[in-house]
Amino acid sequence: MVVEGADAFGLMNAVGLLAFAAAGALKGADADLDLFGVAVLGTSTALGGGIVRDVLVGRVPLALRNTTDVSLVLVGVALAVALSTALGGRVRDHPALVVSDAVGLAAFAATGALVGVEVDISGFGVVVLAALTGVGGGSIADLLLGRVPVVLREDFYATPAVVGGAGVWVATELGVRAGSAGLGCAALVFALRLVALRRDWRLPTV
Amino acid sequence: MVVEGADAFGLMNAVGLLAFAAAGALKGADADLDLFGVAVLGTSTALGGGIVRDVLVGRVPLALRNTTDVSLVLVGVALAVALSTALGGRVRDHPALVVSDAVGLAAFAATGALVGVEVDISGFGVVVLAALTGVGGGSIADLLLGRVPVVLREDFYATPAVVGGAGVWVATELGVRAGSAGLGCAALVFALRLVALRRDWRLPTV
Amino acid sequence: MVVEGADAFGLMNAVGLLAFAAAGALKGADADLDLFGVAVLGTSTALGGGIVRDVLVGRVPLALRNTTDVSLVLVGVALAVALSTALGGRVRDHPALVVSDAVGLAAFAATGALVGVEVDISGFGVVVLAALTGVGGGSIADLLLGRVPVVLREDFYATPAVVGGAGVWVATELGVRAGSAGLGCAALVFALRLVALRRDWRLPTV
Repeated sequence: MVVEGADAFGLMNAVGLLAFAAAGALKGADADLDLFGVAVLGTSTALGGGIVRDVLVGRVPLALRNTTDVSLVLVGVALAVALSTALGGRVRDHPALVVSDAVGLAAFAATGALVGVEVDISGFGVVVLAALTGVGGGSIADLLLGRVPVVLREDFYATPAVVGGAGVWVATELGVRAGSAGLGCAALVFALRLVALRRDWRLPTV
Repeated sequence: MVVEGADAFGLMNAVGLLAFAAAGALKGADADLDLFGVAVLGTSTALGGGIVRDVLVGRVPLALRNTTDVSLVLVGVALAVALSTALGGRVRDHPALVVSDAVGLAAFAATGALVGVEVDISGFGVVVLAALTGVGGGSIADLLLGRVPVVLREDFYATPAVVGGAGVWVATELGVRAGSAGLGCAALVFALRLVALRRDWRLPTV
Repeated sequence: MVVEGADAFGLMNAVGLLAFAAAGALKGADADLDLFGVAVLGTSTALGGGIVRDVLVGRVPLALRNTTDVSLVLVGVALAVALSTALGGRVRDHPALVVSDAVGLAAFAATGALVGVEVDISGFGVVVLAALTGVGGGSIADLLLGRVPVVLREDFYATPAVVGGAGVWVATELGVRAGSAGLGCAALVFALRLVALRRDWRLPTV
């Protein structure tokens, strides 16, 4: 996929892969998985959303075709294991990881939405792909640990991806070029996520 | 997919989408999910089975391509939230919801079986698609909540879909037209499900 | 897929389907599922890995297209139910089942790796397909029961499949024919798994 601002995207995507892989690996280590399990959790968190997206639109997952993504993921897993051994629990809540995670959410949601506008699907489909690409990997990791995905329960985490996906769809329907819409989406998702974190936004329960 | 009796099918399908979305949303609200989670549970219950079916036969899921289905789903979720706020727990077991759910099971199982006979798969494949389309969405919702899918444990719920799927396969092998086989399947599944509810049928455990 | 040593493969695959189906059915019976649930657990364990593999590479799952595999699975389920009624808990740990399971792991990992080298994916992709084909079915069964997949926690079970998948990729990159690489992979996985069982190998936790 060649889009405007591809360099910015590539960078955000790389940061996201590292952060998601690290977050997933830490989650796996907390749950007393063995090394294979920790690697699977990190890999699933970082690559799972994109794999589900690609399967839904009928593509062989990009993550299985190139080697860049998985290399970043393995670096992220290794970093998380090494830093968590050295620093203990402080890695998980470190601002650098939290901000990197928001960067990843933004990049992944934008990529998902852009894949959606490329194929022939509805606006709802675009939103689903944005959300799944952004939060699908973390949710798969939660499910592998037998937990209700955090995004379903109490976090303002999927909502930015949903808003961003809807934004991309509206913008491209209005004639905005896909690349610009994607960059705007990423900026919006990132900003919404950081504000939500700082203000502790939550969606109401029923 | 153009079939005979398409109007009857369309109506049953619409009833089923509403009922499944409402049932899933109520399940999510019971589990204290936030509004996003409730919407995801309703959407997964109503659309999940068809999405899995389409992925298995290599199609971009219909639910992501048209907007009718998801609109019905959102209406179903909103109705469930509104009625459950107004009426409390009486919504879940209301006969109208139970019968609508059986209508949905019948329509979805028939649709799954018809997709199966359209593509080049075995009789077993037809049965699997009928069952997955009928009960896959509810099972995904259960899994998202960290529960063993109800259909695996003690309910005579998947069995009508399996019987209906087998019926469609046998009928079409015998030369019955797909549309007629689908309508017959839906009627059979609906009847079996209602009788099972009234008589409290269960499969034995091993 | 026509490969050298297809007969040996076919035999190993059949043994594996029987063993995986039996192991899955026993797991379902232990969890007090009804007969439908037991059949679903057996079927998922035996066919789930291959189905996930086929979906990832964009094929209609082989298990839904032929009838040989599912027939073997149903035999495996029936055998497990009958033997476990007759013999009680001794079926699960019987050496014949443990060795057959290792045969299945070997055959499935090799098949997954070979599908991977047929399509245009990375070495990582080949390893993922080998591992998913080998352990995906059992993991789906665990997830259906609300459990963390055993392979993530403490078993040297997925590791042989990963090693075997990597071996196939390296060998075919070096010019070894796919059929020979697959047979070597199966032998390697089988040997690693048996040695791991005898010596109680485990991966470290972090």
